[in-house]
Amino acid sequence: MRQFIIIGHEVPTTPDFSLADTAGGAGRLDVLCRCVTGAFFLSHSIRSDVRCRVVLSDSYTIRFEGSELRGLHPDERSTAARIRATLEQRDHAIGQMETNPSPGVYLSRVGVETTLTNAAEEGTVIQLHEDGQPVGTSDLPSDPVFVLSDHRDFTETETKLLSEVATQRLRLGPRRLHADQAITVAHHCLDTNGYTQF
Amino acid sequence: MRQFIIIGHEVPTTPDFSLADTAGGAGRLDVLCRCVTGAFFLSHSIRSDVRCRVVLSDSYTIRFEGSELRGLHPDERSTAARIRATLEQRDHAIGQMETNPSPGVYLSRVGVETTLTNAAEEGTVIQLHEDGQPVGTSDLPSDPVFVLSDHRDFTETETKLLSEVATQRLRLGPRRLHADQAITVAHHCLDTNGYTQF
Repeated sequence: MRQFIIIGHEVPTTPDFSLADTAGGAGRLDVLCRCVTGAFFLSHSIRSDVRCRVVLSDSYTIRFEGSELRGLHPDERSTAARIRATLEQRDHAIGQMETNPSPGVYLSRVGVETTLTNAAEEGTVIQLHEDGQPVGTSDLPSDPVFVLSDHRDFTETETKLLSEVATQRLRLGPRRLHADQAITVAHHCLDTNGYTQF
Repeated sequence: MRQFIIIGHEVPTTPDFSLADTAGGAGRLDVLCRCVTGAFFLSHSIRSDVRCRVVLSDSYTIRFEGSELRGLHPDERSTAARIRATLEQRDHAIGQMETNPSPGVYLSRVGVETTLTNAAEEGTVIQLHEDGQPVGTSDLPSDPVFVLSDHRDFTETETKLLSEVATQRLRLGPRRLHADQAITVAHHCLDTNGYTQF
């Protein structure tokens, strides 16, 4: 299974935001929406072997399960609507006890630290870093957990947590990409993993 | 220079569509918006060496120039708004004579055939195809023109035109991707072109 964790720093934790302003008033929720799309969508199908967690302002985590998702669409607005509908059920999320408002979508009241710790028990956490090993020269694990930040850099606390749980440090390329682009490139590297004849 | 042409089959050619329904009533304009974002955006910067053309329902073509663009944002809604504002100036586009409603954005009244022919004079047209040569084993040109379709397959006419102007046939990977994901992967392949130490 491939996993992605995207840390949103300024996104809302209540459902009272406008779908017409996800890139402004909703704290760049648009970035997270593109990441969800990048994690799951293929042309005319969904990657069922993917788990994606988005951390909302260190307060809530939404877990998306590719094998269970229904009715997800690739546009930002409908993904933002799904996140908003999920947040409407936030009173049912008590600590790590998740609520499951729609197929394949789970909400828990946990922040970055618990989410990283949980994911580290499930797979090989990879830190994407400018000083990391170029991905083309690396053996990628079969259970990677890529951790990404939204439009903001990781905080010092997040960087420290990440370095504690990460077992591999990789660089995807020479240019700094948006988080959703990094997800697409990571999928590409895994899809073609070392094979030039695919 | 890197070029991308995205052919939109059902998108509007008039500006009377809602920004709240780009994935529905606006004929999957959301796909084209993500392609524009994928073509130009890096983290906190724009790729200035990119030209991107979107063909609207074989009637109009919008040309985006990375070196001139100002105020472009990565979210779908604001790109759709830019396209809508561009279409408001459609009466000033007469055949191949472009109008330039905003910095780096040009509108002409030409369809797929003229757009492909123009691009073929400017660079090396690449056809992305399941039977193409795997990109990892190919020498990529320095002036590639990637041609992509939206959520629909190329029509027979488009396929024929494309095979006439394309000089290379490539396959990006083993999975069929969305057009914007293919753009991101193409950029990645060019960014790292054969280099494992970047």
